[in-house]
Amino acid sequence: MSNPKADIVPELDHEVVSRFRSIVGDGHVIADEEKRHDYGHDKTEDYLFLPDLVVKPGTPEEISAILKICNEHKIPVTPRGAGTGLAGGAIPVHKGVVISMERFNKIIEIDELNLQATVEPGVITEVFQSAVKEKGLFYPPDPASRGSCFLGGNLANNSGGPKAVKYGVTRDYVINMQVVLPTGEIIWTAANVLKNSTGYNLTQLMCGSEGTLGIITKIVFKLRGLPQKDVLLLIPFVTSEEACKAIAAIFREGITPSGMEFFEREAAVKTYEYCEKVLNSPVTTKLADGMDAYLLCELDGNDEEVLMRDAERVMNVVEKFQSGEVLFAESSAQKAELWKVRVNISPAVNWYTLTKSDDVVVPRNNLPKLVKGIKEIGKRYGFNTVCFGHLGDGNLHVNILKENISEHDWENKIPEGIGEIFKLSVSLGGTLSGEHGIGIAKRPYMPIAMSEVNLNLMRGIKKVFDPNGILNPGKIF
Amino acid sequence: MSNPKADIVPELDHEVVSRFRSIVGDGHVIADEEKRHDYGHDKTEDYLFLPDLVVKPGTPEEISAILKICNEHKIPVTPRGAGTGLAGGAIPVHKGVVISMERFNKIIEIDELNLQATVEPGVITEVFQSAVKEKGLFYPPDPASRGSCFLGGNLANNSGGPKAVKYGVTRDYVINMQVVLPTGEIIWTAANVLKNSTGYNLTQLMCGSEGTLGIITKIVFKLRGLPQKDVLLLIPFVTSEEACKAIAAIFREGITPSGMEFFEREAAVKTYEYCEKVLNSPVTTKLADGMDAYLLCELDGNDEEVLMRDAERVMNVVEKFQSGEVLFAESSAQKAELWKVRVNISPAVNWYTLTKSDDVVVPRNNLPKLVKGIKEIGKRYGFNTVCFGHLGDGNLHVNILKENISEHDWENKIPEGIGEIFKLSVSLGGTLSGEHGIGIAKRPYMPIAMSEVNLNLMRGIKKVFDPNGILNPGKIF
Repeated sequence: MSNPKADIVPELDHEVVSRFRSIVGDGHVIADEEKRHDYGHDKTEDYLFLPDLVVKPGTPEEISAILKICNEHKIPVTPRGAGTGLAGGAIPVHKGVVISMERFNKIIEIDELNLQATVEPGVITEVFQSAVKEKGLFYPPDPASRGSCFLGGNLANNSGGPKAVKYGVTRDYVINMQVVLPTGEIIWTAANVLKNSTGYNLTQLMCGSEGTLGIITKIVFKLRGLPQKDVLLLIPFVTSEEACKAIAAIFREGITPSGMEFFEREAAVKTYEYCEKVLNSPVTTKLADGMDAYLLCELDGNDEEVLMRDAERVMNVVEKFQSGEVLFAESSAQKAELWKVRVNISPAVNWYTLTKSDDVVVPRNNLPKLVKGIKEIGKRYGFNTVCFGHLGDGNLHVNILKENISEHDWENKIPEGIGEIFKLSVSLGGTLSGEHGIGIAKRPYMPIAMSEVNLNLMRGIKKVFDPNGILNPGKIF
Repeated sequence: MSNPKADIVPELDHEVVSRFRSIVGDGHVIADEEKRHDYGHDKTEDYLFLPDLVVKPGTPEEISAILKICNEHKIPVTPRGAGTGLAGGAIPVHKGVVISMERFNKIIEIDELNLQATVEPGVITEVFQSAVKEKGLFYPPDPASRGSCFLGGNLANNSGGPKAVKYGVTRDYVINMQVVLPTGEIIWTAANVLKNSTGYNLTQLMCGSEGTLGIITKIVFKLRGLPQKDVLLLIPFVTSEEACKAIAAIFREGITPSGMEFFEREAAVKTYEYCEKVLNSPVTTKLADGMDAYLLCELDGNDEEVLMRDAERVMNVVEKFQSGEVLFAESSAQKAELWKVRVNISPAVNWYTLTKSDDVVVPRNNLPKLVKGIKEIGKRYGFNTVCFGHLGDGNLHVNILKENISEHDWENKIPEGIGEIFKLSVSLGGTLSGEHGIGIAKRPYMPIAMSEVNLNLMRGIKKVFDPNGILNPGKIF
């Protein structure tokens, strides 16, 4: 992808750079071109945009000082978490300064009395999950990149993951945050309370705003008690559509699984190969033959008997569809292996070939139509797809495979096909992104999901927070 | 309370009124002064502000036409649900036009396949609850005024109720809404999906904005499966502080009740009297003697054994505090009676004397300090309070009793004491309102909870949606 016109970028003059150096310390400024490369991409396709400078502040006050200078000089600023995003949200498309949040890596407090935690945004999601688990508590949002992504990035994109189907997404856990505005002021968005009807909800406005409204410097999450037990079923289906129909039927039975993950056979095949060849950790669980799709269904709770009863109910529902023999994961090792397959689908597919990754979401019952329609669009536009995702929420990840598609078609024809997928999703009551965000990758498609009036409201809100448009320019709209 | 300067109100000229008449039909315009009185107050103290005109549109397009005229002529517009609010949010303080939503009373669809419902905002909350219950589904938000309040008002204030402690508040159930902007455009805020990372969250911004950003004309809620069983315990405590401590301890045990309601003895006494004398429906359940506070603890689920086990765990925790004999409500009649007491506390106290009603919220573990501090403030400022509320969420309703306080002190001295209560709440990590909203009643206190920067962001957002400031002026900030 070529660099867009960089006409809003001033050269960073020497004096400004030396002010940055004095704010964060010499050791926390990266000017070296090769090192800047690390901050010019995320996990989105092969996008690369080099920032002029990378700074790594350590306090909200340092960020405030940096933003005041950038605001004064109209220097574009791109906040960056771990760079695991799939929509290009953390890429400095207008160059300027990248503010890396990697030094904000402290868990400040886990408040066991109020079931709350205060953290910095550069804490890795899995590190936080483990820390609260040690205290018998539970932070459910669980993106596949949990081993490397940052909590701040999870907030910026409103990340979900497999547990969302029962426990909700990141926005359901954040109750308050400290934010540095593009103009340099430091605010708290709310209070550390479970219910709040005190003015407009700035917390929820920040959550999912992809770093365009402010830089998050502290987060207060609510936590839950940790469910003590779980069971995991791997259910094969003859077709994807049958799997989608079974999901809707399971929910109609009044069962709420804590995970309801879907993947096509092709996703599993690629992942098995990836685990063996790249991770050197082959998968031992055999896949049933003659099956095109799989559901990974997790149930959790505190009562073994209730769980087993619910698992039986799931199996009774599934029998009514064209399904194969259900694998009931007995040991924690087998559960871990099945989750390993699920978590590595995206890396595996991207190892196999370059992809464009979509993240559509529809009302659950419309999933069969969505999956069928995507395959038809693929045929029309000449691309193959690997589909997987959180189908309990109606959220389907669609990886479009480059394989032998020419560069010209990849840049010109395929995006039209993607537009067709989004139009299909919207026509089914859905929208563009369930958890990856819009970033730069889906920005051109926003008018498919939203009226110009909606977009203008968003642009207006952006201007209230960021009058000079310095923060993460070129994203969302 | 006297009328504030009405200087932004133009007289409604004859031509404008006749345009309204032609839009909604003569029968849906109220100009008669006596009838306009019904639209000049809500359930907040004794506030009364007469609107110039009341219109009752029947479609979003009619509202759009009305708002375009009002926007052109800068006529203040106050949207109104059922008028059950406790912060004056629906009162036309700047006169102008009241838009009553009473004709928007249709449940458009209950989608059993996707567990979603589409409703108009003038549907009474309890009517909706019953309709989804008939299909085995569950809409948990449950304000005490459920028998008369409207769903649109619940959204405007982000209402909660007793079930919030386990199931969340109104904002946790709304996924999409149709809104008419003050400038007349009709938009949908999102899509009918469970997860959404597609641009700024206009849905959550609207929810809790107290009718200042747009008029909601359709709402899409997500629903849950209906829990099949519940148990209800009435637990007496020697002091309020002991009750608050017990609540924190119950949650620490990993139990999540579906209701954790608190009331002081005085609240119960007043309500017993009210039920007997006003409702002609005396309460037969006897209150234990020598006890100052009560918890109503509900547990729900689908498994009787699990529920009984959890009830035992609650009783084991409670024993460690200064508590009396626990009443285990056996029959559905007794459960209904206990809930009748809880729901009628607010009407009972307001029948006894005029009140100023507050709605503070703090982290749960700080409740003992909050309750103790409120009583001390009452002593200092010379007022009695009746405290009750959703203490599982840390949300305490504080009714300040007028009793024999002079008009002068009621208008001048008591508000200072209320300011002290809010300062206390904020110092304990809390804020002004958990579910009633700010309206006019708490507007003067907003700077206690929020910096001028936060307030300016909110004012800026308001201006994006409502450049001429016509919609519900004088509220929140």
